[in-house]
Amino acid sequence: MSIKQELSNLLYGVREKRPLVHHITNYVTVNDCANIVLAIGASPVMADEIHEVEDMVSIANALVLNLGTLNERTVKSMLVAGKKANELGIPVIFDPVGVGATTYRTEIASKIIDEVEISVLSGNISEIKTIAGLGGTTKGVDASLEDMAGLENVEKVGKMARDLSSKLNCTIAITGAVDVITDGDKGFYVCNGHEMLSTITGTGCMCTSLIGSFCGVTDDYLNATTAGIMSMGIAGERAYGSLRQGNIGSGSFRAKLLDMVFMLTGGDLAKEGKVYEM
Amino acid sequence: MSIKQELSNLLYGVREKRPLVHHITNYVTVNDCANIVLAIGASPVMADEIHEVEDMVSIANALVLNLGTLNERTVKSMLVAGKKANELGIPVIFDPVGVGATTYRTEIASKIIDEVEISVLSGNISEIKTIAGLGGTTKGVDASLEDMAGLENVEKVGKMARDLSSKLNCTIAITGAVDVITDGDKGFYVCNGHEMLSTITGTGCMCTSLIGSFCGVTDDYLNATTAGIMSMGIAGERAYGSLRQGNIGSGSFRAKLLDMVFMLTGGDLAKEGKVYEM
Amino acid sequence: MSIKQELSNLLYGVREKRPLVHHITNYVTVNDCANIVLAIGASPVMADEIHEVEDMVSIANALVLNLGTLNERTVKSMLVAGKKANELGIPVIFDPVGVGATTYRTEIASKIIDEVEISVLSGNISEIKTIAGLGGTTKGVDASLEDMAGLENVEKVGKMARDLSSKLNCTIAITGAVDVITDGDKGFYVCNGHEMLSTITGTGCMCTSLIGSFCGVTDDYLNATTAGIMSMGIAGERAYGSLRQGNIGSGSFRAKLLDMVFMLTGGDLAKEGKVYEM
Repeated sequence: MSIKQELSNLLYGVREKRPLVHHITNYVTVNDCANIVLAIGASPVMADEIHEVEDMVSIANALVLNLGTLNERTVKSMLVAGKKANELGIPVIFDPVGVGATTYRTEIASKIIDEVEISVLSGNISEIKTIAGLGGTTKGVDASLEDMAGLENVEKVGKMARDLSSKLNCTIAITGAVDVITDGDKGFYVCNGHEMLSTITGTGCMCTSLIGSFCGVTDDYLNATTAGIMSMGIAGERAYGSLRQGNIGSGSFRAKLLDMVFMLTGGDLAKEGKVYEM
Repeated sequence: MSIKQELSNLLYGVREKRPLVHHITNYVTVNDCANIVLAIGASPVMADEIHEVEDMVSIANALVLNLGTLNERTVKSMLVAGKKANELGIPVIFDPVGVGATTYRTEIASKIIDEVEISVLSGNISEIKTIAGLGGTTKGVDASLEDMAGLENVEKVGKMARDLSSKLNCTIAITGAVDVITDGDKGFYVCNGHEMLSTITGTGCMCTSLIGSFCGVTDDYLNATTAGIMSMGIAGERAYGSLRQGNIGSGSFRAKLLDMVFMLTGGDLAKEGKVYEM
Repeated sequence: MSIKQELSNLLYGVREKRPLVHHITNYVTVNDCANIVLAIGASPVMADEIHEVEDMVSIANALVLNLGTLNERTVKSMLVAGKKANELGIPVIFDPVGVGATTYRTEIASKIIDEVEISVLSGNISEIKTIAGLGGTTKGVDASLEDMAGLENVEKVGKMARDLSSKLNCTIAITGAVDVITDGDKGFYVCNGHEMLSTITGTGCMCTSLIGSFCGVTDDYLNATTAGIMSMGIAGERAYGSLRQGNIGSGSFRAKLLDMVFMLTGGDLAKEGKVYEM
């Protein structure tokens, strides 16, 4: 079976199994994350009170930890939920939003990586470079231009991802113009997506939530991550394509993006996916 | 005057009086709740700091308590605000989101029901069964399929609602394919709505906010609750109907839903409402 | 150069420099604020943990403090971030949402104004009257009708703004049917905008975020504030104009508003701006 066929099947798996994806995430993009999880066919739940996160993650199929608007209270809950997920064999998807922008954020990301076994680490190039100890230059929560992965440096980025994957023993996803995904052994480059995705907030967070949705139906986290990223990319292309001439705006794009994830089929992934083996 | 006429008049009442609806609610759907309260013609305010919730609820016409992303801090504020509302005769609408999913959530819901006089308790069938001590099987924050109310079991659900209403001395609303609303004495079944409503997050929360808006203009909480639920249902039907063939997506549906609440008239309620006496 | 030409140039400045705007803001409208900052061409970051706000504001070009859903924890962070911004000469834009509605909110607003040097204070007429000690009658977070600025009382409002500006030594913006902006010396009236803006939540917050975006590229805060307010007003007019007959709803309006900010050009400001010197 081709990789694109495998990813298509994963999408049908999400829609059939309807995995529950527990999020401890930020208050900026949380609504979009919940809606995109529903759109892909999974079921979102957001809960961050330390007295209930162990119970909640116990009924979930995946746990998404997102540092967007981290604070001391929710970080404690992330650690408790992450450890419980580890105990139960539930995959943990970690999005270290904005790591590198502040010392606190970098320390917390390290702490989570030290104390919780991460299944998938997903971030932009600046964030992943920071985690790798290579001094990314995060500007707020967005990747620095100088860090960006493009076709010209994709092999270098691929090597960094493979090295980090081996070191942390998890799947690494570096999102950008070319997305790089690897489990240290195998890996993929994904070339779907559209620059309009960077004109709205939360596309990184939403992508991580999609990865969580796919991780809820398979223990092949490399494929699950690739499926999540490709779904986001194709939906972005289609959302842009659906805008009417003279009305290329980020508000309409945002609504269409959700539409396109909702309407996405396995056939679309197979037909429009631009995925290449590493 | 027919019940549909009465509900229509309530809508005009909301638009004329513009009641202030104080929410202590979750950070996932809060923006949608604020926007739908504005769309129906009321005025939302969200405030959860314990040092100000008594002041805030004192100028409000209704108080909505929603457990979506409860935490220790906001639960304390809910209790304080709820008691103050009771003192002042301001209706309290309680949405025990996800109760049953975790022990903590169930304990907090019980505590609120014990310490605050609730005017309207609104939830899905799994949540209400949990409150009734009948062991609902909440999956995250969504109702379990096995719990769902349909035409085949609507009388059984109606009886449970009436019993719980008598026990808790408040109006009970159980939302689902058929919505069941009762004050223990009288009651209604509402058959409006569309399955697309379950493809976006927050339709339960938004419905509770609409109930709060109507409770802000009448002390007939049975009618107010029915009006809120019917408004949501009709808006959902119309939002679906307004989607263009080939663009049936949850992002567009979400925007249209708000449009349809905004454009809803009393005449629409009278004409399109599907409400039946219990 | 005419004032409209100057404001047009500021818009190009935002798109070229892409200033980072650090927000400590509420969880109701935060997503809309992030998206509108991106739409105007700037870069938003939301972070409120006290252990990182000094680091975050140090890399920012402007700091927006918004009281919408203030709580003890975030108020502390606002004070720390505000003082750090002062140290570094980074402009602080303060939106005292709902001040006057509760004693706590009024005390916190005073504390912030006492301890932090504000560059721009932006609010509706009820909020600004409260700050000025003139007893505004805030209803929740919306301005009272009786307080509203219209053409008939614009000079009186202008005088109040000038007096407060001199007292607090900052630019004052009072948003309403006619917007009043002054630095105590010079000032402008802006007559752009549309009443549909009051049918969705967060237009005040979004306007403040736009002001923050413009303050990130100039130290002429009077012009920056005027540019932010005018951008919002023109986008509101255009968003309304783009709605199809028979579909005048707040959901579509909300998406279009973001579209229109995204598509706004300096030429639009020059051509459609209705700005008058005080």
